[in-house]
Amino acid sequence: MDVLVPFAAVDPKTRLAAALGPGERPVFARAMLLDVCEAIADAGREPTVLATDDVDCSHDVLVDERPLTAAVNDHLDTLGTPVAVVMADLALATPTALERLFDRAGDVVVAPGLGGGTNALVVRHEAFTVDYHGASVRDHRRIARDVGASLAEVDSFRLAVDVDEPADLAEVLLHGEGRAREWLADAGFQLETTDGRVVARR
Amino acid sequence: MDVLVPFAAVDPKTRLAAALGPGERPVFARAMLLDVCEAIADAGREPTVLATDDVDCSHDVLVDERPLTAAVNDHLDTLGTPVAVVMADLALATPTALERLFDRAGDVVVAPGLGGGTNALVVRHEAFTVDYHGASVRDHRRIARDVGASLAEVDSFRLAVDVDEPADLAEVLLHGEGRAREWLADAGFQLETTDGRVVARR
Repeated sequence: MDVLVPFAAVDPKTRLAAALGPGERPVFARAMLLDVCEAIADAGREPTVLATDDVDCSHDVLVDERPLTAAVNDHLDTLGTPVAVVMADLALATPTALERLFDRAGDVVVAPGLGGGTNALVVRHEAFTVDYHGASVRDHRRIARDVGASLAEVDSFRLAVDVDEPADLAEVLLHGEGRAREWLADAGFQLETTDGRVVARR
Repeated sequence: MDVLVPFAAVDPKTRLAAALGPGERPVFARAMLLDVCEAIADAGREPTVLATDDVDCSHDVLVDERPLTAAVNDHLDTLGTPVAVVMADLALATPTALERLFDRAGDVVVAPGLGGGTNALVVRHEAFTVDYHGASVRDHRRIARDVGASLAEVDSFRLAVDVDEPADLAEVLLHGEGRAREWLADAGFQLETTDGRVVARR
């Protein structure tokens, strides 16, 4: 099974701008990408980075400048099914969590992300297409139903956390095991308790 | 195995004040409590609500006014192990997710919550104590190590989302299946897409 890892290579992670400088965001984004690719490889699959620009990376890279939805749908078409699509900012992803995704039966298998996203999916039905805009997990449930594909959902915290906002950095410090966590620690981030959830500060 | 469900019965869910009125918060909190208790019962276990004041509820209720950590530690002592502790605001919890928790081997089994919390745990080691202050998942890892207890973690999105902040309401609309979701929909909440994660608004 091919595993596509979409990656925004140009000005990545703009929603982290309150926490990371413009020079830091690409470095942190690449650390997460490498962690995700390594976890996929350790789960026995070969990742292909689907990037909007060239990326320095030991894994296969396909450059496609189109927006996410168009690029993924075109490559689903070209590659044929089964295909998996795993986002590049799942800094908590482990081989075990990814194996649960890859091994789960279903024409379409979805790992929901925080706030309605679709952080990872497996497509085994040729009529299924993706639509990453808005509450994509809801749209993907609907699209699967419309094309008569069976749908399964993987219940994983490690696949649900995509690192998009400053609050997500605390999750990387708490649960990360790779380069992204190490980069944050080296950049001076530490956990700070509040009245509610802990936050990452430096 | 006894399953304790700690519940703050007095002025609950203050961090939801920006989204819910003072008269709504207790009603919504009770809807979540009943959903959690029902999911525990459907997973074949009998929940006991450990509440800071009396609660109208068809399940067993133990009233204990002490702070969370003190009350839970005392009841761990009294009940003996194994005991499970499942928070009352896990509005996405399903019997399947809870069975993964209850069935997982380990002296201490933890289901991490967003922002460092410990949303659910199973204790099978008599020397283990809880400490819910701050980044409790980190503290519980340390306490397990200190008393020589083996530790396992359950990787579940449905157990990771505790409904504490307005952003969490979107998760209930997206993934909830019980009274809490229905209450939010009846109260006029709908999903609204943004540039990032979807939000619940009315």
